[in-house]
Amino acid sequence: MDIATQTPETHTFIDHVMATIRARIAARSLLPGDRLPSIRGGARQFGVSNSTMVEAYDRLVADGTISSRRGSGFFVSGHTAPLSIAQIGPKLDRAIDPFWVSRQSLDARPEMLKPGCGWLPPDWMPTAAIRRALRNISRSKDTILTDYAPPLGLMALRQLLSRRMAGYGIEAGPDQIVLTDSGTQAIDLLCRFLIKPGDTVLIDDPCYFNFQALLRAHRANIIGVPFTPIGPDVDAFARLAAIHNPRLYITNSGLHNPTGTSLSPMVAHRILKTVEENDLIVIEDDIFADFETSPSPRYAALGGFDRIIHIGSFSKTLSASVRCGYIATRPDWIDGIADLKIATGFSGANLSAELVLSVLKDGTYRRHMENLHARLSRAMDVTQTRLKSLGITPVITPDAGIFLWCRLPDGIDAAIVARNALVDGVVLAPGNVFSISQSANNLMRFNVAQCADDHVFDILARAMQT
Amino acid sequence: MDIATQTPETHTFIDHVMATIRARIAARSLLPGDRLPSIRGGARQFGVSNSTMVEAYDRLVADGTISSRRGSGFFVSGHTAPLSIAQIGPKLDRAIDPFWVSRQSLDARPEMLKPGCGWLPPDWMPTAAIRRALRNISRSKDTILTDYAPPLGLMALRQLLSRRMAGYGIEAGPDQIVLTDSGTQAIDLLCRFLIKPGDTVLIDDPCYFNFQALLRAHRANIIGVPFTPIGPDVDAFARLAAIHNPRLYITNSGLHNPTGTSLSPMVAHRILKTVEENDLIVIEDDIFADFETSPSPRYAALGGFDRIIHIGSFSKTLSASVRCGYIATRPDWIDGIADLKIATGFSGANLSAELVLSVLKDGTYRRHMENLHARLSRAMDVTQTRLKSLGITPVITPDAGIFLWCRLPDGIDAAIVARNALVDGVVLAPGNVFSISQSANNLMRFNVAQCADDHVFDILARAMQT
Repeated sequence: MDIATQTPETHTFIDHVMATIRARIAARSLLPGDRLPSIRGGARQFGVSNSTMVEAYDRLVADGTISSRRGSGFFVSGHTAPLSIAQIGPKLDRAIDPFWVSRQSLDARPEMLKPGCGWLPPDWMPTAAIRRALRNISRSKDTILTDYAPPLGLMALRQLLSRRMAGYGIEAGPDQIVLTDSGTQAIDLLCRFLIKPGDTVLIDDPCYFNFQALLRAHRANIIGVPFTPIGPDVDAFARLAAIHNPRLYITNSGLHNPTGTSLSPMVAHRILKTVEENDLIVIEDDIFADFETSPSPRYAALGGFDRIIHIGSFSKTLSASVRCGYIATRPDWIDGIADLKIATGFSGANLSAELVLSVLKDGTYRRHMENLHARLSRAMDVTQTRLKSLGITPVITPDAGIFLWCRLPDGIDAAIVARNALVDGVVLAPGNVFSISQSANNLMRFNVAQCADDHVFDILARAMQT
Repeated sequence: MDIATQTPETHTFIDHVMATIRARIAARSLLPGDRLPSIRGGARQFGVSNSTMVEAYDRLVADGTISSRRGSGFFVSGHTAPLSIAQIGPKLDRAIDPFWVSRQSLDARPEMLKPGCGWLPPDWMPTAAIRRALRNISRSKDTILTDYAPPLGLMALRQLLSRRMAGYGIEAGPDQIVLTDSGTQAIDLLCRFLIKPGDTVLIDDPCYFNFQALLRAHRANIIGVPFTPIGPDVDAFARLAAIHNPRLYITNSGLHNPTGTSLSPMVAHRILKTVEENDLIVIEDDIFADFETSPSPRYAALGGFDRIIHIGSFSKTLSASVRCGYIATRPDWIDGIADLKIATGFSGANLSAELVLSVLKDGTYRRHMENLHARLSRAMDVTQTRLKSLGITPVITPDAGIFLWCRLPDGIDAAIVARNALVDGVVLAPGNVFSISQSANNLMRFNVAQCADDHVFDILARAMQT
């Protein structure tokens, strides 16, 4: 078929067929050596003409994606292409996919403003306590400086975490706790332990964007549960659990990311009931716990560890440069999780654990957090006022924390605003990076601690106009 | 069928059928909801009688592993059990499985002796430089203390690594380097990027035991290549590559673990030829590089980055408590690897990277390594002499490094010796934990830096007698 004789529509059809086959190879639903449908079968399947199918296959043969074997058809070539998580699942607009905010925030040059990022500026962190901890550790025993950590991680820190959790009504002994390098690594280890490709996992819609990225890496089937100002929509949760037979539900209980809401006790109870009836496991990601001023219910406190796994980290309130997270779970799962941790990372970072322990024991950490609560509360007020003056209104007013989940003026697309602002050196967090259903295009998450600079609002105003 | 009427053989058959079905569920080749073979089909498949099959299914129904649906057969129950990597692949004797040495070494009480572990005692490590680095960092900028690392990791360390690799003839710019939390995490990320469950991976036989554990976690099909005193057996490598169509080969080029051998240039060249002809990728794990006194060839230096990925870490020569490793690879793979790193761990440990950079730049590190070479060379001589007096002889005498791969006296089983010695507080490394073919039962790896204490040899002598 000669290119010149093709209509523009034919071109689109050929591209569509080629892109679909490439995406299936990238997502590994088509593997090297797999036979592709015949011309006639492929044409029927794609709803295109035989000649479009011939042309698509010819081009894929030409670029080496597939090969033809005389008399026996078309086959996927050589080895699988390396995994591209951005290509697993529905095709994404890279500008607003789940990686957008992470890459932009982590890659940001020092002079950039980051109201879209998920952490505090350095001068809001307990740096004096960290400096003291570093000096203390510089005088500690040789083993602390050079040795591997034990499989579950530093015992003294696990004991301290056990006591901290008890303050939330969560009863986990030190032997039920495994230290990890971060909250994300904690969820990753648990996904390795609990799910296999194709398993269904429930997440909140909206939720922390990296849950989506992580679950894509595990090739999970992701289902979003609508999130309300008092927690997940309980009826939708029950319906989706019954229909999809999910294995896992991943959520934040205290200070939900991105909405800033806290779970109501009644919602928590009803969700737990559905969890038990449907043989589900819940990963409760509690990394914002220390920002709370009045504690909200925890699933692990209500339901125990039979079906609830509690995880946390110190990246938000202590340091993101010192990596340390943890998993609290039922005793009979600890050994399997530790085996996986050793196989895939050999050992945790003992020095990081010692640092975190040293800071948490430092009397000034508690005072630092109290000051932080007050400072965040002021920033929350100021940021709300300034955003309202631009016609940007919070969907709810959180009790505490760092996030404001806001609605933009009618008709304004958050993704476009974010792209415009980036040109001016401001990283924003457009709603759809948090939304599996892509239903948050008019919403945006603001980190009130990163909104102190006037330029944020000037550039935001300009970005909404263009 | 009444239990009392069963012969001992029948019991064994029932157990075998049950164990096989359980192992398939654990390894997820049978999934929840999957239909099991009919009684008759199962009996044929297992080569047992119908009544044995009925009894095996009845017992699996009784303990909830499977369920029967009237008129339609037997099905795998509920959700998949959590992943047990120890149960993937052939059934292992836990006492000598790939996790044995890791768990024993990492869990060892301080008073235990560890000639079987893979690292140096704390007083052999550059602790003075680490203490200086900690004090330096305690005075550094707030951002270093609290911020996330950029996606690829600290630029200044990547620049230094680029220059270090150039010293081995490996040309990787800083933008071709991704920092990780360890050498193990580097390989884990690469397995996520490059292989899928069921892909075949070649490893050396013997090789570092955690390669096996890691590949089990990825559900790879693992094939061992016999290892000779000058590198992998090139003919076996070519034959296995042709038969099994592997995707990856994971190896150490300089100072192979556990044998201590160095790759010969001719072997390296012939392996690379096979690699190119068979569309293979090589992960070259170079974590023992700094122990070399005269450098051996590197695959990445000979073959470039088209098919070779070079990884390293600082756990062995600098600190295992400060976790830091790296991947050097082709530029077009960096983005996909960084996406996976963010999705599964969000960020690397910037503080660890700053610490490693600070120590590597410290003028005393090079002097420390020179002293270490001399000290290890003496320990190698002394340990060989003492082992020989017990009838334990090195298979080869390495040029450098920390390992001696030794043959025990005829008829002595290393696994039994290791189990006996553990009772007396000594962790040994029996040969078969390194051998996928389980053909090293008369061999044992000794870490010469952990053999300074006389008790090691006393207990070893006793453990060989009982």
